[in-house]
Amino acid sequence: MVLTNFNRPLELREFPVSRLEEGQVLVKIRAAGICGSDVHMWKGEDPRTPLPIILGHEGVGRVVDIKGKRYTVDGKQIKEGDFILWNRGISCNMCYYCKVLREPSLCRNRKVYGINMSCSEPPYLNGCYSEYILLTADTDIFKIPEDIDAAVMVSSSCSGATIAHGFDMINLKVGDTVVVQGPGPLGVYAVAFAKKLGASEVVVIGGSPSRLDICREMGAITLNRHDTTVEERREFIMEMTGGRGADVVVEAVGSKGAVEEGIKLLRPNGVYLSTGFAQPAGLEQIDFYLDVVSKNICIQGVWVSDTRHTWQVINLVLDKPDAFSKMITHRFRLDEANDALAVMANRQALKAVIEMQ
Amino acid sequence: MVLTNFNRPLELREFPVSRLEEGQVLVKIRAAGICGSDVHMWKGEDPRTPLPIILGHEGVGRVVDIKGKRYTVDGKQIKEGDFILWNRGISCNMCYYCKVLREPSLCRNRKVYGINMSCSEPPYLNGCYSEYILLTADTDIFKIPEDIDAAVMVSSSCSGATIAHGFDMINLKVGDTVVVQGPGPLGVYAVAFAKKLGASEVVVIGGSPSRLDICREMGAITLNRHDTTVEERREFIMEMTGGRGADVVVEAVGSKGAVEEGIKLLRPNGVYLSTGFAQPAGLEQIDFYLDVVSKNICIQGVWVSDTRHTWQVINLVLDKPDAFSKMITHRFRLDEANDALAVMANRQALKAVIEMQ
Amino acid sequence: MVLTNFNRPLELREFPVSRLEEGQVLVKIRAAGICGSDVHMWKGEDPRTPLPIILGHEGVGRVVDIKGKRYTVDGKQIKEGDFILWNRGISCNMCYYCKVLREPSLCRNRKVYGINMSCSEPPYLNGCYSEYILLTADTDIFKIPEDIDAAVMVSSSCSGATIAHGFDMINLKVGDTVVVQGPGPLGVYAVAFAKKLGASEVVVIGGSPSRLDICREMGAITLNRHDTTVEERREFIMEMTGGRGADVVVEAVGSKGAVEEGIKLLRPNGVYLSTGFAQPAGLEQIDFYLDVVSKNICIQGVWVSDTRHTWQVINLVLDKPDAFSKMITHRFRLDEANDALAVMANRQALKAVIEMQ
Amino acid sequence: MVLTNFNRPLELREFPVSRLEEGQVLVKIRAAGICGSDVHMWKGEDPRTPLPIILGHEGVGRVVDIKGKRYTVDGKQIKEGDFILWNRGISCNMCYYCKVLREPSLCRNRKVYGINMSCSEPPYLNGCYSEYILLTADTDIFKIPEDIDAAVMVSSSCSGATIAHGFDMINLKVGDTVVVQGPGPLGVYAVAFAKKLGASEVVVIGGSPSRLDICREMGAITLNRHDTTVEERREFIMEMTGGRGADVVVEAVGSKGAVEEGIKLLRPNGVYLSTGFAQPAGLEQIDFYLDVVSKNICIQGVWVSDTRHTWQVINLVLDKPDAFSKMITHRFRLDEANDALAVMANRQALKAVIEMQ
Repeated sequence: MVLTNFNRPLELREFPVSRLEEGQVLVKIRAAGICGSDVHMWKGEDPRTPLPIILGHEGVGRVVDIKGKRYTVDGKQIKEGDFILWNRGISCNMCYYCKVLREPSLCRNRKVYGINMSCSEPPYLNGCYSEYILLTADTDIFKIPEDIDAAVMVSSSCSGATIAHGFDMINLKVGDTVVVQGPGPLGVYAVAFAKKLGASEVVVIGGSPSRLDICREMGAITLNRHDTTVEERREFIMEMTGGRGADVVVEAVGSKGAVEEGIKLLRPNGVYLSTGFAQPAGLEQIDFYLDVVSKNICIQGVWVSDTRHTWQVINLVLDKPDAFSKMITHRFRLDEANDALAVMANRQALKAVIEMQ
Repeated sequence: MVLTNFNRPLELREFPVSRLEEGQVLVKIRAAGICGSDVHMWKGEDPRTPLPIILGHEGVGRVVDIKGKRYTVDGKQIKEGDFILWNRGISCNMCYYCKVLREPSLCRNRKVYGINMSCSEPPYLNGCYSEYILLTADTDIFKIPEDIDAAVMVSSSCSGATIAHGFDMINLKVGDTVVVQGPGPLGVYAVAFAKKLGASEVVVIGGSPSRLDICREMGAITLNRHDTTVEERREFIMEMTGGRGADVVVEAVGSKGAVEEGIKLLRPNGVYLSTGFAQPAGLEQIDFYLDVVSKNICIQGVWVSDTRHTWQVINLVLDKPDAFSKMITHRFRLDEANDALAVMANRQALKAVIEMQ
Repeated sequence: MVLTNFNRPLELREFPVSRLEEGQVLVKIRAAGICGSDVHMWKGEDPRTPLPIILGHEGVGRVVDIKGKRYTVDGKQIKEGDFILWNRGISCNMCYYCKVLREPSLCRNRKVYGINMSCSEPPYLNGCYSEYILLTADTDIFKIPEDIDAAVMVSSSCSGATIAHGFDMINLKVGDTVVVQGPGPLGVYAVAFAKKLGASEVVVIGGSPSRLDICREMGAITLNRHDTTVEERREFIMEMTGGRGADVVVEAVGSKGAVEEGIKLLRPNGVYLSTGFAQPAGLEQIDFYLDVVSKNICIQGVWVSDTRHTWQVINLVLDKPDAFSKMITHRFRLDEANDALAVMANRQALKAVIEMQ
Repeated sequence: MVLTNFNRPLELREFPVSRLEEGQVLVKIRAAGICGSDVHMWKGEDPRTPLPIILGHEGVGRVVDIKGKRYTVDGKQIKEGDFILWNRGISCNMCYYCKVLREPSLCRNRKVYGINMSCSEPPYLNGCYSEYILLTADTDIFKIPEDIDAAVMVSSSCSGATIAHGFDMINLKVGDTVVVQGPGPLGVYAVAFAKKLGASEVVVIGGSPSRLDICREMGAITLNRHDTTVEERREFIMEMTGGRGADVVVEAVGSKGAVEEGIKLLRPNGVYLSTGFAQPAGLEQIDFYLDVVSKNICIQGVWVSDTRHTWQVINLVLDKPDAFSKMITHRFRLDEANDALAVMANRQALKAVIEMQ
C-alpha cells in the first residue's frame, strides 16, 4: 500500500522481490501497526517523508528467505520460518552519536523502515503496509514466540520502545508515584513500564473513558480531564503524595499546554519525561524560576529508540501479553489500510493493526 | 530481655522509663524481629556489642508518649496511638560520610538500637526485645497501617533495608536475569526487589526446600544446591541467558566460597552485589584476570542501610504483605526470647519474631 | 548592619552575644560577600526575607569561642583561633528531602544565615554583615588555610557551591565543549568547574569586557553579545563542534530569553544546566518538539547547594586561589555595607566583599 | 615484521597491497607503539594470537589511498594525505553487547588489528609493525594535527583508551584523592585522567624512579615501593585523607597481590578500578567482610576500550602533548622491531615506539 501523494488514499501496488544480498532477510508480514506518525506522514506533516513510500514502521512477520548466516541480537541463528520482530531504525554505526555517545537513536544518518526509505528504487520493500518486507543486513532482529498474537507485538517497535527509552534514562525507586499525561499507546506503555520498574502508584490523566479503563486494568489510578479541572488534578496528586508532588511525570500527549500542566505536578527534584511531541505543537511557556530552577527539576526529552529499548519492551510485553492485547481496538486487512489510517486519524482507535494471513 | 554475658541466656529485667526530652518518643513494642546478627552478638562474635545490652534492632510498635511535635519522614505529625516503624540507625549528620558523600549508612558515629547502644545508662530502653523502647529525637519514624501484621513488617528495618540499599546502587532493565545466592531473609527480599524493579527472571540457589518454596511463590526459579553441582548450576544459568550469564548476582549467603561460585555466573559487565557477609568468613580467592578484569565485572559491597532504604522496603512490603508473611516461620512471647534466638541459631527458622500484646 | 525596611539603608546596630549552648561556635567575621540575592532582598523582591535581618550569607571568619567539642565536616576538631568557612544552609535532617532523597538542599525547613533568619530574637547574630556570627550546633564547618585571602573564599558559600551542585548532577567527558551564558560569579565558577572536570573547550557569552577577560584568563573563549548576533554566536558554537552543538550549556544569567537562546546551542542529547534564575523573570517560550524532544535534550534546574558542594568548591578554589582573586573587584569596610550593595546593584562590581580586621 | 613462531624473532616479509574495496583506507604507518601485550603475544602467553601475525595494535599514519567516501567519527571527510589514528578494535554491531548493552568493547566477535587478525590471508596488512596497514570500512578513524609527534599519539589506541574506559565508568568530584598502583603507561594515563577529571590529589605507588618522575611532573605525589613498606604507604594515604582512605584506587599493575594491597587504601564506599590484569596472574585473596562488604566498596574491572574512549584520550593528549612525550623512552626503526620488543620485555623502556619516515 503505497503513499504517492499526501492526503490521497494509499494504493495497492506490486513490486518485484530483489535477489537477496549477503545478510538480507525476506519477511512475510503478519501484522503491521498503524502509528499516529503514519497519519502525520500521510497528511504531509512530517518533513522526513520521501514519496512514493510504503508506510508502516511497526511490523511482525515470518522469515521466508535469508542469504547467508544471520543471528538475532541475542545470538540465535535466524532460519526460514522464524517468527520475528526487528528494530525499525538502522543507524550508521560510524558517527559521533553512534560511536562516541553510543546513542544510535540519535544517529544523523538513521534510516527507518516506512518513514524515510522510499520505494522508488530497489529493493522497494521497506515498509510494513505490505505483504513482504526486505530487511537489510544491518537490521537488528529478535525472534518472538510462535503462539503470540502478532498484533499485540507490533507496537513494541515504536511507541513501546520510545517509552522504554524514556524509562531507561531515569531510575525509579519503590515508593515512587508516576503521573502519565495521556492514555494513548505511549501512555499505556508508560503505565506498564512504571509499574514494572518499581513505581508504587501510577496516575493517568486523559479524556477517553475506554482508554482510561485499559490503564486502570494495568493498575493505574485515572483522572478524566473532562470531569476535573487542572487545579483539582493538581490537588489530587499533591494529596496522594503528602503535598510533595509526583516523582516522575511522563508527557505522552504532544499537544500544546501539556508541559505547562504537567511540570507543576512534580515534586522538587522530580523528572519530567517528555515523549509525546512527534511533530511541532507550538510553544510551551515555562516559568523557569518557579517551575524548573527553584524546584531543581529535570526535564528530559525522549526521541525514538534503539535496539536496546526494543529488547526491553519485547520482554515487557511477553511477560503479560494479555494486558497489552486490550490496546488493539481495531484490526484490518492489508487492502483496508486506508480505513485503518482513518480510525487512527479520527482517534476512534487506540491502536489499529493490519493483519495478514 | 538483657544480654549480660555472651553465650548466656538473656534475662528479664526492669528499667525505669526516663522522663522524655524534647522530640523523644516512647513506644510500646508490638513485634521484634530476631536477626541473624542477634545470634552473632549473643555469641560475642560481633565486636560492636557493648554489655549489658537489650538486643533487638528490628521493631514495630505503638506510640504511647511523645514530647513536643514530631513528624514522620514523609511529613505526617506523630501522635499517641500511632502504629510505627523506625530506622534502626542514627547517623551523626555532621561527618564526611553524612555530609559530603550523603551516605548516612557509612557514618562512623552511627548508633544502632539493639546493636551498639548499651542499657547501662539512662534512658536504658534502646533495644527491641523489650516491652518499651525510647526513640531519640533524631530517629526517623514512619507510620504503618493499623491492619498490618506487625511481625511481617519488622524485617523492613534490617534485611529488607539492606537489600533495598543494594538495589538502590544498580539499575535493572526489563529483560534482565538476576541470580540470588541464598534463600534466607536477605535472599527473599532480593527476589522481591528484583521482581519489583524490572527483572524478567530470578533464579535462587539454596539448600532448604521450604525456603526455596517461598522464593518460588514469589516468582523465582530455584536450584537446590544439594541436588546440583556447581557446574550444573552454572550451565543452567548460561543456558537460560543465551550463554551470556546473569546480569546481576546477589550474594545473600555470607559464607566462604560464595563469591567464588557466584562471580562466575555473571555475564561480561554484570554486577555482583555482595550483601551477606555480616561477619568475617575467611578469604575469597578471585582470579582477577579471568573473572573481573577481562569480563569488565563490577563487584559492589552492601553494608547496612539508611532511611531512604527503609522507605523503599516499607513500600515494597505494603504492596504485597501476604507474600512476605510466609517468611515468618516462628512466633514467640517476649519471655521466650531465648527460644527465639535458638531457632535462629540452629537455622530451624527462616524468620522468628517476638510478639507482644 | 541591619535591614529594617526594604529599600532603605542598612543600619549599624549592636546586639549582645548570647551565652553559647552546646555545640555553638562564635565567629569573628573576617570577610562577607555581597551576593546578587542580597540586592534583591534589600529591595524586598525575595519573599523569604524576614525583617529585621542582618544580611550576608557568605562569610569567612575566625573562631573566638566554642561550647563543647565540635569537628569540621572532614573530622578535624575545631578550636579557638581556627580560620573557617561554613555551609550557609541548615537542613532539618528529618524530612523526605533530607532522608529519602538525601538532598538536603531541597529541605522545606532549610534555614539560611542572612536569608531567612531574622535578628529579632536571640541569638540575633545570624548574618554575615556583622562583626560576629553565632553558628548553631548543626552548622557544617570547614577549616581553611591561614594564608588565604578571606575575600577570595566567601563566594564558595553561595555562587560557587551552586555551580558545584549543577556540575555534580552531570558527567563531563574529556573532549566536551561547555558553553556558559553569563560571566558573573556563577559564570566564572562554571568556567572553573567545567575546566577542572574535563571539558576541552569552554565558551562564555557575556556583555562586560572586564568580566569576559577574567573568563579568558581561566581558559575560556569569549563572545561579547554586544558585538555578535544570536545567530552568529550559534554559528560559532556549531562550527567549533563540527556542526553538532555544545555538550553542555550552563545558564548563569537569570534573565528572560536566556533559555530560548541557550537551548539552541546544544547538540542532541546535550544538557542544559539552568542555575541563574534566583527570582521570577517571566516566561521562557520553548518549542518542545524542536528543542527538547526531537533532540533528546535534558534541562536540569539547579537550586542552591548543600555541604557536599561547599566541600567541592573549597577544594576547587584552594587549588588555584589566584585565579579567583580577580573576581573580587571591590572591597569595603563593614560600615560601608550600603556602598557595597550599591556597586552590586548597579552591576559595577563583579564581586564586592566587606572586610574586617 | 611477522611473528611466525612464538618466542622467535619477528621476520621482515613483503605482502601485496590488495585492491581496495568500498570504504577501505590504505595507511602508511608513521609510528607503531610496542605494548606490553605484544610481548605476551610474542611469548605465546595470549591465547588469542593466530599465527602468522603482524603484531602492533597501536598506530598512527597517513592516508595514501581510499575507496569511496569515508568520514571521521566526528564527521570530517577523510582524504589522501590525512594524518590519522584509529580505534584498534572492530565490533560486530549486531550482538547483545553491541546493541542491548551498547558496550562494543565487550563484543564477543571483536576483531583487533595486530591481536587476533592473522596475515595468512588477504588483505594481509592488519598489524602496525608494518610499512602499510589496510583499514576496513568499519574501522573508526580520527584525524590528528599535522604537527604532532606521532610517537606521542600511538598509545591513545590502547593503554590510554583503556584508562579512559575506566574513568568513564566512575564520577570523580573535586576534592577527591586518587591512588594509582603502577607507573607504567596505564598508570601515567591514570594520573592524567584523574587530574583532568577533577581529582585534587593523585598518589602513585611504583618501583621505578624514572617512571615515578614522569608521574610527579604530571602533578602526582609518588611513593617508591622499594623505600616504603605496605603499612607505611597505607599510613601515608590515611594521613593525607583525614583517616578515611582514597576515594578511588586505580590498579595498573596486573601482578599478584596488587588488589590485596590496593583495596585496603580505599575509604568506605570508594571505587577500585582494576585495569592492569591483561593476562592470568594467579588468585587475589580478598576478605569480603572486611574489605568489600563492611566498607561498601565497589570493585570495577576494566577491559579494553571502544571508540568513545579513543575520542576521550585523543582529546586528553592533544591538550598537553608535551606532558606525554616523556613517556616515549625508546624509538626504533621498523627493522629493529625485535629490539623494541626486547626493551619492553626487560622493562627497560616505559614506552618504545617504532617510527617510519
